Amino acid sequence: MCQLLGMNCNVPTDIMFSFEGFHRRGGLTDEHADGWGIAFFEEDGWRVFLDNQPSATSQVARFVREYPIKSRCVIAHIRKATQGKVSLANTHPFRRELWGKEWIFAHNGNLTSLPDHQGARRFQPIGNSDSEQAFCWLLDQIAQTYPAAPSAEELLPRLQQWAALLAQSGTFNFLLGWNDTLFAHCSTQLWYITRQAPFTVAHLADADLAVDFSQVTTLNDRVAVIATQPLTDNEQWIPFKQGELLMFRDGQLIGLRT
Amino acid sequence: MCQLLGMNCNVPTDIMFSFEGFHRRGGLTDEHADGWGIAFFEEDGWRVFLDNQPSATSQVARFVREYPIKSRCVIAHIRKATQGKVSLANTHPFRRELWGKEWIFAHNGNLTSLPDHQGARRFQPIGNSDSEQAFCWLLDQIAQTYPAAPSAEELLPRLQQWAALLAQSGTFNFLLGWNDTLFAHCSTQLWYITRQAPFTVAHLADADLAVDFSQVTTLNDRVAVIATQPLTDNEQWIPFKQGELLMFRDGQLIGLRT
Repeated sequence: MCQLLGMNCNVPTDIMFSFEGFHRRGGLTDEHADGWGIAFFEEDGWRVFLDNQPSATSQVARFVREYPIKSRCVIAHIRKATQGKVSLANTHPFRRELWGKEWIFAHNGNLTSLPDHQGARRFQPIGNSDSEQAFCWLLDQIAQTYPAAPSAEELLPRLQQWAALLAQSGTFNFLLGWNDTLFAHCSTQLWYITRQAPFTVAHLADADLAVDFSQVTTLNDRVAVIATQPLTDNEQWIPFKQGELLMFRDGQLIGLRT
Repeated sequence: MCQLLGMNCNVPTDIMFSFEGFHRRGGLTDEHADGWGIAFFEEDGWRVFLDNQPSATSQVARFVREYPIKSRCVIAHIRKATQGKVSLANTHPFRRELWGKEWIFAHNGNLTSLPDHQGARRFQPIGNSDSEQAFCWLLDQIAQTYPAAPSAEELLPRLQQWAALLAQSGTFNFLLGWNDTLFAHCSTQLWYITRQAPFTVAHLADADLAVDFSQVTTLNDRVAVIATQPLTDNEQWIPFKQGELLMFRDGQLIGLRT
């Protein structure tokens, strides 16, 4: 299995604090040592950093920890390989372009099969992981269903149906980024927290490190963080329900919870 | 305009020496300071590093200079914006997936128009540069012409025709990476050199730095380097002819020159 980390904000924010704890789970405080990756939505495109080394020791991870990149939407993943060898081609997050926008995908879980493909396979996996196959399948459904880009609100209920279909074949927790919108699906476990004023002190679960967010934010800032396991040990993280697909934009949960 | 750097080898090789000189042209020894990027073919996928900062001062460039990544095919680009604002979405190299393989593209030049699109626009630009539009147009032609992936040898003559068509609208020097194959098209200026045994000492044109390749290579190594301007001042670089499209694999020029 793997671990997921997502962040969605109303103003560009760096992910240094959360990533400091998260990256340790890749070989230090946990066993997810088969590569890692992080994608930042910046301006109108995504920038992705990948490495097939454990995030706890990766030179690329060290660079990301030392170089604060501000973003309104971030997806990170540390891998514990189930299907597919340890290689860059199998390293999440995966990316594809559709309708002139990038789609970014990271998966925690294991799928033993995929639904039958209807129509052409426009999106094809580069590596051989079940995760990338599922991502391509999802994008094929989206491309075949809509003649042009729908709104995220229109997409949400259909995405929920496709996610449920895929989850019949195994564990399918995922994060899907599209522009500044973050979709998060829980098949077995996923948690989130929304931080906004009044900001407090947060303390990492994986390192003895705390930050007083009231010192580094403004009153209007709003940040949602989504993770496989809560990253801090003194805040109230909210568990996703099984089968739930939530959508975040501007650091806010959009729409009603199921 | 911009500058291009490509490398193609028979064994994974780092590009530290060439990049040391090349990155200085992004704001130090030359004016190409509107962002830069580099793509490495590793195993079965490409890894791309991008920054919208000048390569001479970019933190990401510093990381790439300090962290040797070995690759059999590399494409780098430093940008002097002509069309499209300075942003990550307009930063080369661009990437797309087709038939489960990644295509990587970087352009030096300026195109004032594009040929008419025939059929659907499957690949659409994320930014607003002429370069990414040309790349998407090329991939649309490829996807529409071949029902499945052709060999690079089959693709070469058609690619030459499309490149010539695009070059009617301006300057169109480009590098196109596909797996371990590097296509290089010269519209106005491009040079290459092939290094193989007996290796000699090379001295950078942009910095007082030399390397004795005989000390860091084996007898069987073969490396082709392609650049907008020769990177060394004591070696015999070969100029491309105008309108020429060359293909490199395993550090070797494949096929006859026109």
